[in-house]
Amino acid sequence: MGSTFGHLFRISTFGESHGGGVGVVIDGCPPRLEISAEEIQVELDRRRPGQSKITTPRKEADQCEILSGVFEGKTLGTPIAIVVRNKDQRSQDYDEMAVKYRPSHADATYDAKYGIRNWQGGGRSSARETIGRVAAGAIAKKILKEAAGVEIIAYVKRIKDIEAVIEPGTVTMDQVESTIVRCPDAECSDRMIDLIEHVRNQGDSIGGVVECVARGVPLGLGDPVFDKLEADLAKAVMSLPATKGFEIGSGFAGTLLTGSQHNDEYYSDQGTIRTVTNRSGGVQGGISNGEHIILRIAFKPTATIRKEQRTVTNVGEEVTLAAKGRHDPCVLPRAVPMVEAMVALVLCDHFLRQRGQCGEAD
Amino acid sequence: MGSTFGHLFRISTFGESHGGGVGVVIDGCPPRLEISAEEIQVELDRRRPGQSKITTPRKEADQCEILSGVFEGKTLGTPIAIVVRNKDQRSQDYDEMAVKYRPSHADATYDAKYGIRNWQGGGRSSARETIGRVAAGAIAKKILKEAAGVEIIAYVKRIKDIEAVIEPGTVTMDQVESTIVRCPDAECSDRMIDLIEHVRNQGDSIGGVVECVARGVPLGLGDPVFDKLEADLAKAVMSLPATKGFEIGSGFAGTLLTGSQHNDEYYSDQGTIRTVTNRSGGVQGGISNGEHIILRIAFKPTATIRKEQRTVTNVGEEVTLAAKGRHDPCVLPRAVPMVEAMVALVLCDHFLRQRGQCGEAD
Amino acid sequence: MGSTFGHLFRISTFGESHGGGVGVVIDGCPPRLEISAEEIQVELDRRRPGQSKITTPRKEADQCEILSGVFEGKTLGTPIAIVVRNKDQRSQDYDEMAVKYRPSHADATYDAKYGIRNWQGGGRSSARETIGRVAAGAIAKKILKEAAGVEIIAYVKRIKDIEAVIEPGTVTMDQVESTIVRCPDAECSDRMIDLIEHVRNQGDSIGGVVECVARGVPLGLGDPVFDKLEADLAKAVMSLPATKGFEIGSGFAGTLLTGSQHNDEYYSDQGTIRTVTNRSGGVQGGISNGEHIILRIAFKPTATIRKEQRTVTNVGEEVTLAAKGRHDPCVLPRAVPMVEAMVALVLCDHFLRQRGQCGEAD
Amino acid sequence: MGSTFGHLFRISTFGESHGGGVGVVIDGCPPRLEISAEEIQVELDRRRPGQSKITTPRKEADQCEILSGVFEGKTLGTPIAIVVRNKDQRSQDYDEMAVKYRPSHADATYDAKYGIRNWQGGGRSSARETIGRVAAGAIAKKILKEAAGVEIIAYVKRIKDIEAVIEPGTVTMDQVESTIVRCPDAECSDRMIDLIEHVRNQGDSIGGVVECVARGVPLGLGDPVFDKLEADLAKAVMSLPATKGFEIGSGFAGTLLTGSQHNDEYYSDQGTIRTVTNRSGGVQGGISNGEHIILRIAFKPTATIRKEQRTVTNVGEEVTLAAKGRHDPCVLPRAVPMVEAMVALVLCDHFLRQRGQCGEAD
Repeated sequence: MGSTFGHLFRISTFGESHGGGVGVVIDGCPPRLEISAEEIQVELDRRRPGQSKITTPRKEADQCEILSGVFEGKTLGTPIAIVVRNKDQRSQDYDEMAVKYRPSHADATYDAKYGIRNWQGGGRSSARETIGRVAAGAIAKKILKEAAGVEIIAYVKRIKDIEAVIEPGTVTMDQVESTIVRCPDAECSDRMIDLIEHVRNQGDSIGGVVECVARGVPLGLGDPVFDKLEADLAKAVMSLPATKGFEIGSGFAGTLLTGSQHNDEYYSDQGTIRTVTNRSGGVQGGISNGEHIILRIAFKPTATIRKEQRTVTNVGEEVTLAAKGRHDPCVLPRAVPMVEAMVALVLCDHFLRQRGQCGEAD
Repeated sequence: MGSTFGHLFRISTFGESHGGGVGVVIDGCPPRLEISAEEIQVELDRRRPGQSKITTPRKEADQCEILSGVFEGKTLGTPIAIVVRNKDQRSQDYDEMAVKYRPSHADATYDAKYGIRNWQGGGRSSARETIGRVAAGAIAKKILKEAAGVEIIAYVKRIKDIEAVIEPGTVTMDQVESTIVRCPDAECSDRMIDLIEHVRNQGDSIGGVVECVARGVPLGLGDPVFDKLEADLAKAVMSLPATKGFEIGSGFAGTLLTGSQHNDEYYSDQGTIRTVTNRSGGVQGGISNGEHIILRIAFKPTATIRKEQRTVTNVGEEVTLAAKGRHDPCVLPRAVPMVEAMVALVLCDHFLRQRGQCGEAD
Repeated sequence: MGSTFGHLFRISTFGESHGGGVGVVIDGCPPRLEISAEEIQVELDRRRPGQSKITTPRKEADQCEILSGVFEGKTLGTPIAIVVRNKDQRSQDYDEMAVKYRPSHADATYDAKYGIRNWQGGGRSSARETIGRVAAGAIAKKILKEAAGVEIIAYVKRIKDIEAVIEPGTVTMDQVESTIVRCPDAECSDRMIDLIEHVRNQGDSIGGVVECVARGVPLGLGDPVFDKLEADLAKAVMSLPATKGFEIGSGFAGTLLTGSQHNDEYYSDQGTIRTVTNRSGGVQGGISNGEHIILRIAFKPTATIRKEQRTVTNVGEEVTLAAKGRHDPCVLPRAVPMVEAMVALVLCDHFLRQRGQCGEAD
Repeated sequence: MGSTFGHLFRISTFGESHGGGVGVVIDGCPPRLEISAEEIQVELDRRRPGQSKITTPRKEADQCEILSGVFEGKTLGTPIAIVVRNKDQRSQDYDEMAVKYRPSHADATYDAKYGIRNWQGGGRSSARETIGRVAAGAIAKKILKEAAGVEIIAYVKRIKDIEAVIEPGTVTMDQVESTIVRCPDAECSDRMIDLIEHVRNQGDSIGGVVECVARGVPLGLGDPVFDKLEADLAKAVMSLPATKGFEIGSGFAGTLLTGSQHNDEYYSDQGTIRTVTNRSGGVQGGISNGEHIILRIAFKPTATIRKEQRTVTNVGEEVTLAAKGRHDPCVLPRAVPMVEAMVALVLCDHFLRQRGQCGEAD
């Protein structure tokens, strides 16, 4: 049941890195939305391997097909199944993985949990699994944009210790996409690219922080007390591979302030209630307040590295391992569309829930 | 539907700070567990107001009653309803709140979402709501302890900029409970208490970080890809009031390392597969690996302060507000049992799910 | 998890026949609905024992209390907890039940499933459990009535072989409530009452059929393919105690017709699409079509009888048993409000779901 | 969300009769079960059109492909996606359906609910949708058989007024499959086939009753009070196309008995507690009691008939319609594997739930 996410806008993803394919079924998409495979492909292309010199050189077209739920270019309100076939399976690279557990990967825990594992690549724990999420996220984004004018933009905020200066209120998708590292701070992005290439040459890897802003989110989304908006956002992004931390608004840094420094005072902006500051990150008491929703996610350095590491086999024998497959030295550039997708899925689900429980906004 | 949490061990909490009472219904508790109101009360007493000089002086006994699901001291496998009556309602303190929105509180967002709000105190967004969680958590803790020997201990790791040094592997509940601030670092805890009292005298508030360790968690808990253990833990604690961030294992600091520095190498500990380090925080690929699960939660400074702040009324008129009610200058000491409860609820649900999907461990 | 029902309008019931009390938590009730304990009590009074000479003589006032979710007479949008205390516990009547399994009761299966059972009465399998359902149903009914003008009326259609003639399109609640057997066919109802009293005097019991009509249900409710309206209605009423069968529209009798006899031809009623006949029972393809929803439920004869029966003890010893407690010779008169409640819960949940997925109707 | 079914063994089906294909994602299948596309195909072949002279002559191979979740012939514990491509699309037959609503079909209600509809055939309301159910049911059946020795056999009990005599305790799958009408009563089955052919020649259709027995079901399945086994079974089969009624055990006929006639007395069968009769149908208080589970489902006559009928267009114009497409004159022979699948899905989900909540049986 762990591969199902959402309530009214509910997705079920499927697929391992090797095997027939990966994809998603979206159950609960509102009817009469115009959508095409091409629009979804745009997001998948932002996620796919081999898109630039700083990602894995694996070439995978990741071409999607819509099997159901869309008729004459519009959603039917019935389940939308989207499939991407698996290709380019150099599984001989993975032979060693049949027995050796890769450090900080999920090989050992999948074996422990299920007593079986598709060792031809990452199996279900491969980032390839996120194809279904990104495809569904593309539809969620469109619903939010059409129904409420919501814009969701993620970008690389920090790579290792190189931190960019970015204004969440005004950053544009074009700015994000203008660099291969998806950091819309020109000076930083060059240094980030250099660092990623340097680390790759050393057979090592690095991580960093992705920031995401959602602008134009309607008032009232979020369903206390457990399905608070920040709680569902935290779960959504912490379910992405390689994540180690989540913050909203002031985050951990906010704990160094006093209440009088931290509180967001209110004012009236020509009748609209607004906050002077936005340390709340657009959510108060688990409910969106109309300000920008701003969150940050920590991605650890890629676990797969060429450097030799100590490990064990599936029968507990101590051995060493040096990865031979092609892999990303830094997952963040490709993680950006994944974060946007997860945020879109949460907001879309809560948008429909709010309409269901409380009716149309006045 | 947002007040329901968990799947096999599913809880529904109810209650506002004012009104008849608060509580919880636990649907899916395994049968034949010995449990008493007294055991639950122990946890509620750790959560209740007025327990020490650094919490709110509100006196609330928060005495719980078990209405169903327990017979002759044992759980029946049927829903367990636990109720705590509301008392000590000095709602005249709150008259101003009928119209003035408290900054960084949920008054404005509840009004926006529901078009109505119980303004006599925090209503549903009051920390009083967590009584049901803590009561259910007490039962979840006991199941985990009896069935698998799991120990869950949370403690205050940092108050504002005073950070304690605590060894998660050996810290004991007695050590945590030996200070009123629930920081088991004697030197730090005195400074923390002084700081909290100082801040209270200034009419201000502070926040900090709670750390939680779960020891003895069985291998294999967590249900990829969405219900990864860290994802469900993140949601669980981020649904607590006043939280702004979540980390597991190396967290945000881990993003400053390279892969070769960050990866947890494996070794064989007399046949058991273990990791040399634990930057993963006990979870790999969303599944527990048998190491300690370690997480940290950022709590913002209490929003309620005596200092005067700018705000608006529910009709958008700009006014000022200075809180008159009794409140906590720092929520962390009372948040410790809440964090433990939420972690226990997640682990207990996944323990039952794992038993259901994969059967008993060998 | 089995005591939770519904998605957007989600209820969790709790309570055994003996112990502190029974009740319900409603999670997801729309805000700003006017509701009072008195309105709920009206429905509970239709359900309670001792209401007439043909029900069990047990006197239970079943007075309800609203603990949360309602403020100044209106729903808050937060969980509504409703509790009824248990009273009048003549549990000495039940001593035999600690060891002897009552035929066609749930004693043996509860012991088999849970390994424990509250034997002081029916425990969780007691019809007393339905108090929470009826209370929640009262609120669901009101939402449906206010938001869409829906009327839900159930009545006794048949007692054993005495079958009433009732016109679902015009029957009124007053007519139903005008007889203690809740059969709005004056001639039949007298014979039914006589038969029930006769059977009671013989120490035996009887069953029958309840019919329910929902009038004014909006077009479009139901969520294929699994949550078809008839599927959710079937589950809802088949979860009531003592039910053995469910029909919608033409039901089993419809299988004796040919397609040309059975199909509901369409016509245009001044622009509105209507069906000439209603063998579909108001639902086509799992979705309401605007015609009356009509369903029938088979209730078996009460399992508790004074006549001596063969049975076994919980250790498998063969014994005899003759019930001594007070009980209903026929559950149908009291089942009527339970059926209405379950139908209302399903329709209300689907009403909110439809609004969420598809937006407001034009 | 309505295309998702089950909790621990959760399926999501997708697909319209026309478009890319239909299928299912199974989320929560236990790991290490041996399964092949060939085994699933066996069940799909029992369901497919064109299998005999009394079904629709449409030729559809309905060849399934497993896209994920199975590795080297065994389940991984990860989602299993199964796809069947759509073929043989004579959609010109359906041109009339773009505007004319077929009586007792879902055309009008889908338009009312979603404001859009794939009119090239039945769309989502087509029986073709059940391919995903039958595929998932094949896996559920195998789990139940391997883990607990459960056998599920459905068969045609009645066609119109021709009722077969069948002993649920001993009927075999071979007997069922030995006739094209799937009625294991040789004398009746010939008459049924004749009747179906006769009705088809008249351009009409007929319905009937399918009975299903589950033998060897473990004690303790079912989760009161809402997820009682009979309630979930009722929902499961009532979500199949063309169903109008459900019975378990004595069903509607049982309402004609007195309690003393109806109750199932207990006896001890060499230490095992058994019932003398089985009017309960294998379920007491919502929990399986170890006796055969027996249920019956009413299927209405096929709505598609060649005879001319009155109807309206999607703009309310009154017209006539005579179906031209190929269709089944009686759905029951093909409904048999669908019923088995739904029963298997419910039992498998409850088997896993029971193991989760209560642990392994002793």
